[in-house]
Amino acid sequence: MITGETALIAHLGYPTKSFKAPMIYNPYFESIGVNAVVVPMGVKPENYTQAMEALFTLTNIAGALVTMPHKVATVALMDELSTTAQIAGACNAIKRRDDGALVGDMFDGEGFTRGVLRKGHALKGASALVVGAGGVGSAIAASLAAGGVARLGIFDPHAPSADGLAGRLAKHYPRLALEVGNKDPRGYNIVVNATPLGMNPGDPLPFDVARLESRTFVGEVVMKEEMTPLLREAQARGCAFQIGTDMLFEQIPAYLEFFGFPTTTAENLRAVARIAY
Amino acid sequence: MITGETALIAHLGYPTKSFKAPMIYNPYFESIGVNAVVVPMGVKPENYTQAMEALFTLTNIAGALVTMPHKVATVALMDELSTTAQIAGACNAIKRRDDGALVGDMFDGEGFTRGVLRKGHALKGASALVVGAGGVGSAIAASLAAGGVARLGIFDPHAPSADGLAGRLAKHYPRLALEVGNKDPRGYNIVVNATPLGMNPGDPLPFDVARLESRTFVGEVVMKEEMTPLLREAQARGCAFQIGTDMLFEQIPAYLEFFGFPTTTAENLRAVARIAY
Repeated sequence: MITGETALIAHLGYPTKSFKAPMIYNPYFESIGVNAVVVPMGVKPENYTQAMEALFTLTNIAGALVTMPHKVATVALMDELSTTAQIAGACNAIKRRDDGALVGDMFDGEGFTRGVLRKGHALKGASALVVGAGGVGSAIAASLAAGGVARLGIFDPHAPSADGLAGRLAKHYPRLALEVGNKDPRGYNIVVNATPLGMNPGDPLPFDVARLESRTFVGEVVMKEEMTPLLREAQARGCAFQIGTDMLFEQIPAYLEFFGFPTTTAENLRAVARIAY
Repeated sequence: MITGETALIAHLGYPTKSFKAPMIYNPYFESIGVNAVVVPMGVKPENYTQAMEALFTLTNIAGALVTMPHKVATVALMDELSTTAQIAGACNAIKRRDDGALVGDMFDGEGFTRGVLRKGHALKGASALVVGAGGVGSAIAASLAAGGVARLGIFDPHAPSADGLAGRLAKHYPRLALEVGNKDPRGYNIVVNATPLGMNPGDPLPFDVARLESRTFVGEVVMKEEMTPLLREAQARGCAFQIGTDMLFEQIPAYLEFFGFPTTTAENLRAVARIAY
């Protein structure tokens, strides 16, 4: 129940209609007796700077979750950015430090890598290919680098996106072996689709699945359906895999830690969430 | 349950700790299946203008409840003010019209007068004495005038407050008989304590209860306890009376109408509220 002592977490994006976080976080907070609430706030791009700055003057705000279309715009409004947010060039989480400074982080990729680790697959020293160097691909690449992969392939049909991401990775992780411009999945421990391919019926597969090895772990960001065409192909080839919503639920413990709330597992969050996937 | 389609009502004030509205409105909205939520937002005076303007750019905000210390400051930020808000010189409710204009109203007094009417006492043509011409007294006087009282006494120990209120009343209600500067309750149909006297043990009574007639209806704004010393005296003299929290609950149907939500009675609101008085 919301009271005068409830901590607010603003959920900033537009439109708000498809927001899922309130139905995941709020039942969880209720289940553990934490007096906090995620409140959807629809903000149009032209009002974002003003709204963000004003919201962080509220005395009972604990932080913000940021979603489309504000993840990139948030970067310029932060006083401090995590390495991952710097590489991703985007933020999906904001907190205000006690000194008033706004700190931005990005947990989309952390959701991906936490899921990989919890499924028993190593990151340290591994090789990974990220297909798609947009917002979510950049975040995943940054988190894979933070997780200690030794070799990282980056592909984007728009070559400057891949080059830009590789440059930001090289700056922060100089010992990381980067391979840019090739989407052949062969030879990688981990391959992830970070493109929107799979959202619409008839989309081509994001890479040549005939080249997939069965030892390769396949990740997916598309969450329109649990088993996307790519994941069905990976499963048919005997690959271990991760569905799109795992990334969503696996990142929430990271958010909870960031905001300073008691954390839990993705399974517990799925169990209490009042939402169907 | 809060979703991406929930309408927000910002509850603006500082500090938020003692806010009661979320525990009254939210269980009510839940009980009737309205997807709306009252969200406490702590705003310090120095941030109020900025916060207010930014909040009303949110695409999912339905309005705001305004409480201490922002009721007076809100007046200058509105595009349109009700007559009652103009006389009170304060707003406790804001909505945004479809054309974007912010409309301010004041329901503290409306809560008082609705309670009087629902207890079977007439306002039209009646005489009323308001002791205390501060924020809540001004609001009650404005609502008594709107309700059609023929004669209105105004008293405040700070004479300019009473004079100012009388001047604003005279401007909007030229046919109202005003009597300023006398707090003798004799001869009035309705007498209301709109001072803080009764908040603290040992406070003097706000007026001379020995002069109370048994036919007089006595109202109280102090809600620290249900039966204040004044109300105990009134009861002992056989007067009908209204307790402080009646004003609180009686004004909520007016708020609900203002925001365009389905309304109900104060009794129903009390029955579903998750709060003890």
